[in-house]
Amino acid sequence: MKFLAEIEVLPKKGLLDPQGKAVTHSMSSIGLNNVLEVCVGRFITLEIEADNESSAFEAADTASKKLLANLIMESYKIRISEL
Amino acid sequence: MKFLAEIEVLPKKGLLDPQGKAVTHSMSSIGLNNVLEVCVGRFITLEIEADNESSAFEAADTASKKLLANLIMESYKIRISEL
Repeated sequence: MKFLAEIEVLPKKGLLDPQGKAVTHSMSSIGLNNVLEVCVGRFITLEIEADNESSAFEAADTASKKLLANLIMESYKIRISEL
Repeated sequence: MKFLAEIEVLPKKGLLDPQGKAVTHSMSSIGLNNVLEVCVGRFITLEIEADNESSAFEAADTASKKLLANLIMESYKIRISEL
């Protein structure tokens, strides 16, 4: 079976997010004064061949820990769905 | 009211995604041979002050179109939730 893993990686709260800060400042220049705070991270999708949802989750979790997220500075969330 | 907009930006299907290709190749080197394809994009969260969900969505949509996504090469999805 094939699964889709969608992984959201964001800088941890309280840590510097210079890209987010820069984008926050740009918002008012395009007329959006009601955008208070911006965080910028990465979005990664994986197509995984696995027997069931939990082993697909495990593969996505290993990939996140070892390759996709820097756990010192970033946190991640995984969503799994069947393809 | 405050809303959280979560925006997923991904390269359009069929367009080059060199980062995704590179990560796909790296998967086997960490023992994940069951990961078939990887796409790498951006994940952006906005904190928005708005009267209701639809005007929060509109602000997030404007931000995506004008600033956050390159519509020629990327597509985006927006999720709105109340804070």
